[in-house]
Amino acid sequence: MGFVPTMGNLHRGHMSLVRLATERADRTVVSIFVNPTQFGEGEDLDDYPRTPRKDLRKLQEAGVDAAFLPAPREIYPDSFSTWVDVKGLTEGLCGRYRPGHFRGVTTVCAVLFGIVRPHFAVFGRKDAQQLAVIRRMTTDLRMGIEVVAGPLVREPDGLAISSRNGYLSPEQRRQAAAISRGLRRAAEMAAAGSRDAAALEGAVREAVAGQDKLRLQYVSLVDPETMEPMSMLDRTGLLAAAVYAGDTRLIDNVMIEPAPKRKNGR
Amino acid sequence: MGFVPTMGNLHRGHMSLVRLATERADRTVVSIFVNPTQFGEGEDLDDYPRTPRKDLRKLQEAGVDAAFLPAPREIYPDSFSTWVDVKGLTEGLCGRYRPGHFRGVTTVCAVLFGIVRPHFAVFGRKDAQQLAVIRRMTTDLRMGIEVVAGPLVREPDGLAISSRNGYLSPEQRRQAAAISRGLRRAAEMAAAGSRDAAALEGAVREAVAGQDKLRLQYVSLVDPETMEPMSMLDRTGLLAAAVYAGDTRLIDNVMIEPAPKRKNGR
Repeated sequence: MGFVPTMGNLHRGHMSLVRLATERADRTVVSIFVNPTQFGEGEDLDDYPRTPRKDLRKLQEAGVDAAFLPAPREIYPDSFSTWVDVKGLTEGLCGRYRPGHFRGVTTVCAVLFGIVRPHFAVFGRKDAQQLAVIRRMTTDLRMGIEVVAGPLVREPDGLAISSRNGYLSPEQRRQAAAISRGLRRAAEMAAAGSRDAAALEGAVREAVAGQDKLRLQYVSLVDPETMEPMSMLDRTGLLAAAVYAGDTRLIDNVMIEPAPKRKNGR
Repeated sequence: MGFVPTMGNLHRGHMSLVRLATERADRTVVSIFVNPTQFGEGEDLDDYPRTPRKDLRKLQEAGVDAAFLPAPREIYPDSFSTWVDVKGLTEGLCGRYRPGHFRGVTTVCAVLFGIVRPHFAVFGRKDAQQLAVIRRMTTDLRMGIEVVAGPLVREPDGLAISSRNGYLSPEQRRQAAAISRGLRRAAEMAAAGSRDAAALEGAVREAVAGQDKLRLQYVSLVDPETMEPMSMLDRTGLLAAAVYAGDTRLIDNVMIEPAPKRKNGR
């Protein structure tokens, strides 16, 4: 049985994860739960878009067998006191700017996994750090649940699809495409032989700096498994960025391969 | 399938838990693992008695189907980074004096439960706080594992059986019986109508104070489920104590019932 945990407001990104699950599994369960414990103070918990009727229609059309929409009290009864925390992996990138966020994510996933008991669970590559953190948790705690990585789906101009894109003004929305342009530029530089992390990160910095409505929070080349910073692209790297457009926080990333080393005499 | 997690050096206390499991289950698994993460700095991790050959013989005689003796690296590979933490319940009693202890216990139990996947797991009542903490964890994370409470087994003079009793000098061993005498006295006082927590705790204080080789670390009347202090015995309470005999830390407890209220006219 396959499982896709979501916060609802399902878009093409989610639906690609759902498709991945339905293709692999005899039964697919999707949860819709805006998990309060993964939102920090001042974050958008109350404003987060909730569209359960639309979501359920989409899931039904996609051939999902069960949707699980628990109330917060069902996941977190008053007596709830257990937290699952992944160290190390959660300290950089988004974890640095969203203290407690990943603890909320791992805890809710542990609870949902306990209720749903899937053979595999699908997580999107847009949330690359989350994907690595959940993989670590399921491995460490021997949960016996395979973590399947789903594709990062983009709009035609390259913007990674996210429920939070709906918060953007038309001008912010237009400028937001610069994030993926910068990431793509970095991947091209790597393909052309650039291996210096600062240079690759610089491509994103530059692309974002050119847009007056965007503000870079971080861009970092890291190991895709450990999330530890890489100074040189000597193996596959994950280039990940978080950018503010007004109050809206957008994240995006790309896997970058180093260019093959030139052979002597060529 | 039933599971009894232990740290080995199996004594009559452990074997009563094993018996409880074999009586209830078609298959019984016992783990022996001196879990490094539940020992604090300066505690007895290195000195903790390890008697695997004797233990295995006892388990075989008891009809156990499988013994699991993992190496520390098997439970905690280098990449291990996930911790399970129960808040609240772990803050008083032993948790106050052994920071990180219960985090180590819950984490190793989550890992062992993931590997063994039992239907139920047996924990002794001597470690009453541990029992409550593990119950909370399995409930909160919907582990689907029943936590079965096993009896607290005592020596003829009342001392709760523990691997750490082996550390005691003959004189310490003799005096150590005062702990359970104090607890028993408190239970008698309660049966006779005493409901004041301070008075009940006082019985243990007094019994221990009378022994020059013992030093009380704590004695506290708490709710058996939440471990929150009770000032009055208005329902079933857990009277729990930790006592040092030299460098050896001993714990013991007793469940105390309030005396039935007298009817009018009697």
